[in-house]
Amino acid sequence: MLQNIRVVLVGTSHPGNIGGAARAIKTMGLSRLYLVQPEEFPSSVAVARASGATDILDNATVVETLEEALVGCSLVLGTSARDRRIPWPLLDPRECGQRSVEHAAGEGEVAIVFGREYAGLTNEELQRCQFHVHIPSDPQFGSLNLAAAVQVLAYEVRMSWLAAEGMPRKMEKLETTAMLNAQPATMDELELYYAHLEQTLIDIGFLDPQKPRHLMARLRKLYGRSGISKLEMNILRGILTETQKVARDAADKRGDD
Amino acid sequence: MLQNIRVVLVGTSHPGNIGGAARAIKTMGLSRLYLVQPEEFPSSVAVARASGATDILDNATVVETLEEALVGCSLVLGTSARDRRIPWPLLDPRECGQRSVEHAAGEGEVAIVFGREYAGLTNEELQRCQFHVHIPSDPQFGSLNLAAAVQVLAYEVRMSWLAAEGMPRKMEKLETTAMLNAQPATMDELELYYAHLEQTLIDIGFLDPQKPRHLMARLRKLYGRSGISKLEMNILRGILTETQKVARDAADKRGDD
Repeated sequence: MLQNIRVVLVGTSHPGNIGGAARAIKTMGLSRLYLVQPEEFPSSVAVARASGATDILDNATVVETLEEALVGCSLVLGTSARDRRIPWPLLDPRECGQRSVEHAAGEGEVAIVFGREYAGLTNEELQRCQFHVHIPSDPQFGSLNLAAAVQVLAYEVRMSWLAAEGMPRKMEKLETTAMLNAQPATMDELELYYAHLEQTLIDIGFLDPQKPRHLMARLRKLYGRSGISKLEMNILRGILTETQKVARDAADKRGDD
Repeated sequence: MLQNIRVVLVGTSHPGNIGGAARAIKTMGLSRLYLVQPEEFPSSVAVARASGATDILDNATVVETLEEALVGCSLVLGTSARDRRIPWPLLDPRECGQRSVEHAAGEGEVAIVFGREYAGLTNEELQRCQFHVHIPSDPQFGSLNLAAAVQVLAYEVRMSWLAAEGMPRKMEKLETTAMLNAQPATMDELELYYAHLEQTLIDIGFLDPQKPRHLMARLRKLYGRSGISKLEMNILRGILTETQKVARDAADKRGDD
């Protein structure tokens, strides 16, 4: 079940931190590491700091974009050091561990995303996460080492997993169609939906691409926390497709005038 | 109260770990570091890894024996990587955090003791501790980096401290407007939204009132569980209004044909 949970490091500068993160996740029984544009990898410094967790480094998936690292995931949690202007559903590390384990137990894929050593995740990257996770550090000196932050969140995942191990399985057998329908949409399906939604809002004149303000961020937040199923996604996409047809007809009409 | 809790590192080999531990304890609001026979200290490597927590290093107390490091303490917790032959009261990190905070709140002095990178604490040193603390790592790969172990225990101390202080573990400081926006929509606002949504879906030809099937029920389920805020409701209603305008234009066009 823990194999459904991946750790994603975005734009890591120091290979030592990649090694430290590999060691941290392996000590907690996790195994899957994704690296988005690491500055230096593979690296002997990473191997030294991994201190025996070299299999995690050898099997790490290196990709160019966060999007690629999230393929297949239906729950994405992004670590965030500070308040943001747009408030976002926020979890502490313990809640992050609980959510991750619950989701992974239901066969969903989970990503826990960590940003750059100095700059963290960009706002755009944070908007791809359904939840933000904040380690409640001292406001006077809030910045944990990257590998140390990975250790804390991986530890909380393990604590939840150990607690869940002792409990009866919650998953009842569902009917096949109901099961399919209840399957959560994956992050890449969600991204396609957001792109479709954005284009549709432009088509009907609700969204001005020159002045997008926070509209898409707000809608991402709303739909992100809803835990949309594949069936619901189909319905929402269908509505957008019909709306676009109508918008085309209306545009044709304006062209006629 | 946190100043009653000290972190003691015994026989540390790598100065980088001392720096990492200093940073870890400072991020969690702790400040007192004791070093028993460190192999290399002071050290520029430690300063580099402390990443701004140099005051912790500058104020660290260097001593020759564990006994000296424990002077004044009435609760001593020693980290232990493995089961020992002599059974000892064993805590997990969460219990360690709780005990430490309870004790420190009663003006007692607390020491959390960490052993050498490879060999841990000796049996004799462990016997000076009232409790042993074990971070529940994977039995196949159990050895955390020293600074990472300090981070986990310091994190649990902080979580207990925040709970005891009655402070939120999450920062949820929202601005006033953000707070208003985050107010949930009321049930009657939701009903108005569903009515508006249904009419719009009819207008664009997505919903056939003669054969509604389960469409509205499914959409109610989706939006119902999202906990929509007043701001989000305004956005969703705005999208519907624009969609209806476009649908009217398109219908006019069809009327023209």
